[in-house]
Amino acid sequence: MILLLGGSGYVGEAFQKQLSRRGIIFASIARRDCDYTQPETLRELIRKTKPHFLINSAGYTGKPNVDGCELDKENCLLGNAVLPGVIARVCAEEKLVWGHVSSGCIYTGERPDGSGFREEDLPNFSFRTNNCSFYSGTKAMGEELLGGYPDCYIWRLRMPFNEIDGPRNYITKLMRYDKIVEFTNSLSHLDEFVNACWETWERRVPFGIYNVVNPGPVTTKGVVEQMIKAGVSNKNFQFFKDEAEFMKVAAKAPRSNCVLDASKLLKCGIKMSDGYEAVERALKIWV
Amino acid sequence: MILLLGGSGYVGEAFQKQLSRRGIIFASIARRDCDYTQPETLRELIRKTKPHFLINSAGYTGKPNVDGCELDKENCLLGNAVLPGVIARVCAEEKLVWGHVSSGCIYTGERPDGSGFREEDLPNFSFRTNNCSFYSGTKAMGEELLGGYPDCYIWRLRMPFNEIDGPRNYITKLMRYDKIVEFTNSLSHLDEFVNACWETWERRVPFGIYNVVNPGPVTTKGVVEQMIKAGVSNKNFQFFKDEAEFMKVAAKAPRSNCVLDASKLLKCGIKMSDGYEAVERALKIWV
Repeated sequence: MILLLGGSGYVGEAFQKQLSRRGIIFASIARRDCDYTQPETLRELIRKTKPHFLINSAGYTGKPNVDGCELDKENCLLGNAVLPGVIARVCAEEKLVWGHVSSGCIYTGERPDGSGFREEDLPNFSFRTNNCSFYSGTKAMGEELLGGYPDCYIWRLRMPFNEIDGPRNYITKLMRYDKIVEFTNSLSHLDEFVNACWETWERRVPFGIYNVVNPGPVTTKGVVEQMIKAGVSNKNFQFFKDEAEFMKVAAKAPRSNCVLDASKLLKCGIKMSDGYEAVERALKIWV
Repeated sequence: MILLLGGSGYVGEAFQKQLSRRGIIFASIARRDCDYTQPETLRELIRKTKPHFLINSAGYTGKPNVDGCELDKENCLLGNAVLPGVIARVCAEEKLVWGHVSSGCIYTGERPDGSGFREEDLPNFSFRTNNCSFYSGTKAMGEELLGGYPDCYIWRLRMPFNEIDGPRNYITKLMRYDKIVEFTNSLSHLDEFVNACWETWERRVPFGIYNVVNPGPVTTKGVVEQMIKAGVSNKNFQFFKDEAEFMKVAAKAPRSNCVLDASKLLKCGIKMSDGYEAVERALKIWV
């Protein structure tokens, strides 16, 4: 039995679909029904349901975007930093192995040689580097709190998308913004992401951090061209001159734009398709 | 009526004594009886008790010292950063003014000109400056979460002490450590601290941050000399050669040693005695 925390969120629902498709028995727990931020409540839940693996897909993301976190810092800290710490402690005490959905947004840019950040690189978009959004700061702190725990996967997601139109989907976001910015980014196809996360456990690869992104970063312009070519949008996309103009006009919190290296995951034999390919596939069956 | 959160702690008990002495009606709430970290629980408590001021003396300090926080980061974050954020939001919504016990340990050293840090100086011992203990990081983040709220006092305490021997008392700590380090620090006489905090509200001085410390920083050696002179200790105090040796041998987390400027508080007509004088007075009636 698998315990899924945060199962009603964007990533949690994808985990539900993935586990159902695989015929795996799981219990999806929503925080409003069972407040698993409370150690004793979580412990009781674990003792009652006796899972052999736990997935934490709960987290606080701002609405409609990361700027929302700047206005609700306490819940952002609680959901993204305190909660993983609570789960880690209770799981360690209950001898339960688990996986945590983290984020690649704790980086900005790329390695000095132009390659993607690897799992051993320290976050460079965090409270510690004092250049981050509050959201990114709390996600990096969440990973920091898991530092001492050996029996845990940390799965880093980046700008999720798939073929289903929705407010959390990167492709939908690009369509809805009045004006967008040119950046290079790693993305995670949501269904490939949850599949790969599950595979880390299924294959019993070593615990630790994994960048679960589609190899091959994409640019905003590249994705927009694909959208137009696929007929998903015929909008005349307007671009901000540069990041400075974007920050001045449209954003409150600084944005993470970064390239992550997926090779640690791929070396375990877990497949993720190329970034542009994954986007193309999603656009082909866009709903 | 005054609502006192964390009334069973070291600072909370001093607030209880102070309020009782002044004949002020208050309700002291312990978290084990009423979990005020939960916004709805806190809101209900406020609506039921209808206080006209709230004091938050709850916080997470490590046991036996700040190193303890490194081993319980989730509760440290919850108690020192999330909780003030929760209180601020609920108080703002319920139109309740309040005061928060913060800490001067979000600084290290002194201003470049040798004077103490003032309230407008940004913390320099915090996650943002990436040089701090986890405890200091969470206390600075707690202040950060209060940034947008206008109806709140932030009272900064530093190394509390008074005449009563106890594990949280700075003088007791000096006596009990096998070996100590020479540093210059601002201190807060605990009873003077709670008196001054209360006076900020009693006198309706402007809301905001106040360094509530005894003016005139002290050195470890200076205090030890006073202790020996007063006959409170006849120990042959051993000093670490320097901070580096102390960090290597005795400490896990970096320590904040700093000088704070109390003049903003004093200018409001609120008195705090000189640091060495306050120590001398405590030693004279040591229990």
